[in-house]
Amino acid sequence: MHILVTNDDGVTAPGLLALAGEMRSLGQVTVLAPDRNWSASGHVKTMHRPLRVKETLLADGSPALATDGAPSDCVALAALGLLSQKIDLVVSGINPNANLGHDVTYSGTVTAAMEAAIWGLPGVAVSLDSPEAHVGALDYAPAARVAGRVVRAILQNGLPRDVLLNVNVPYLQDDEIKGIVFTRQGLRVYRDTLVVRADPRGAPYYWIGGEAPTGVREDGTDFGALAEGYVSITPVQLDLTAHAWLEELRGWQW
Amino acid sequence: MHILVTNDDGVTAPGLLALAGEMRSLGQVTVLAPDRNWSASGHVKTMHRPLRVKETLLADGSPALATDGAPSDCVALAALGLLSQKIDLVVSGINPNANLGHDVTYSGTVTAAMEAAIWGLPGVAVSLDSPEAHVGALDYAPAARVAGRVVRAILQNGLPRDVLLNVNVPYLQDDEIKGIVFTRQGLRVYRDTLVVRADPRGAPYYWIGGEAPTGVREDGTDFGALAEGYVSITPVQLDLTAHAWLEELRGWQW
Repeated sequence: MHILVTNDDGVTAPGLLALAGEMRSLGQVTVLAPDRNWSASGHVKTMHRPLRVKETLLADGSPALATDGAPSDCVALAALGLLSQKIDLVVSGINPNANLGHDVTYSGTVTAAMEAAIWGLPGVAVSLDSPEAHVGALDYAPAARVAGRVVRAILQNGLPRDVLLNVNVPYLQDDEIKGIVFTRQGLRVYRDTLVVRADPRGAPYYWIGGEAPTGVREDGTDFGALAEGYVSITPVQLDLTAHAWLEELRGWQW
Repeated sequence: MHILVTNDDGVTAPGLLALAGEMRSLGQVTVLAPDRNWSASGHVKTMHRPLRVKETLLADGSPALATDGAPSDCVALAALGLLSQKIDLVVSGINPNANLGHDVTYSGTVTAAMEAAIWGLPGVAVSLDSPEAHVGALDYAPAARVAGRVVRAILQNGLPRDVLLNVNVPYLQDDEIKGIVFTRQGLRVYRDTLVVRADPRGAPYYWIGGEAPTGVREDGTDFGALAEGYVSITPVQLDLTAHAWLEELRGWQW
């Protein structure tokens, strides 16, 4: 069992360290992650420039590879043969913030797992729903243990092709987490605002700002599960077709 | 009717010019597009740096705005109030190559329309299935007319929230196009390879190369429609939940 561990916060992120440590109890681990933060950078295939790969060390002294590509590039590089040994499974994270609702297509954490599914590999994205107001180092240990549990279940049951798992863990201790629920993608409520400022030379610049997004805490959704203290696991598919709308469109006057 | 026209090839692209021209016959048009190429750069929300917006002119002398953000940022900027007048509809393209199958999450053209759907606006992505071997300027006029037809149908019928249309047009003249079919997302076959080279100082660099992707030309899919000479319209939804797999997951030993 050869597990690729990547993330979108970059190779120095503490969430990656915790995830890699947990995965080592399940098999051989290769860490290949971006050399910088790629949050909210979406599903990328870098084709117009070459990528560099350098050897580095995680904070626990274990070896890792860093690239100047995106999280999804890390998966593509591994799938394309950068590593001498074939990859069996990809785990991405642990993201310090939840990836819920419409976040899935923006999220580097989730799109890395999506890239795995495109390559026919089981892919898991793991995010921690840390509180907005949290100050100081986050405790990733409970979420890492959840990730271990999810990967063990995949190894036992097998994920279907074209499906990845989007896992979000509440920021609680092991014994406070109520369990795992299987959810649908809920409704994100973005609260972005446009901040307009003048630069030192008087020219305007625009910053997408505003408060952190919230979501609708509906039963059966990822938001609902987290709000109740459960781990949310949403199976995400590569087919985005709005099948229910095909007939409707055929009925329009064209 | 205020239509935002954007793309992922940048404000100077001929496909954008053709699309903006066609849209002007349907309403007021604002062009707000990236100042450079963002192909295969995915669904982006630029939050960690400010964005600049500058006034420019298209090749026909009409005014346009260019930003250093991604295609989806263009939509967010407009939706957040950069433009004094509210946007009613977003059209993205015309991309010189088809966006089919798994391309939808990578594609800047499609993710711009996805961003529109997230903001509650009708969104349409338009791509031209130009032949791989094509040399010289592409004729975007037939695809622009198809885009006009699609937008007219949306104005008449209304798109549901959370659904966008992914339109792909065969590279044919108007009278050679057999019609419009409504399709599901087909199966892309990527043929990427990893090209490893040494730089002038002997250090390795890696380039994701290989042949252009193909796809499975199955009936009812986007690939199948184009191969037969039809325009393919795939309704794409924001909900990526693999609903069919929820029960299966609940049955696993956790």
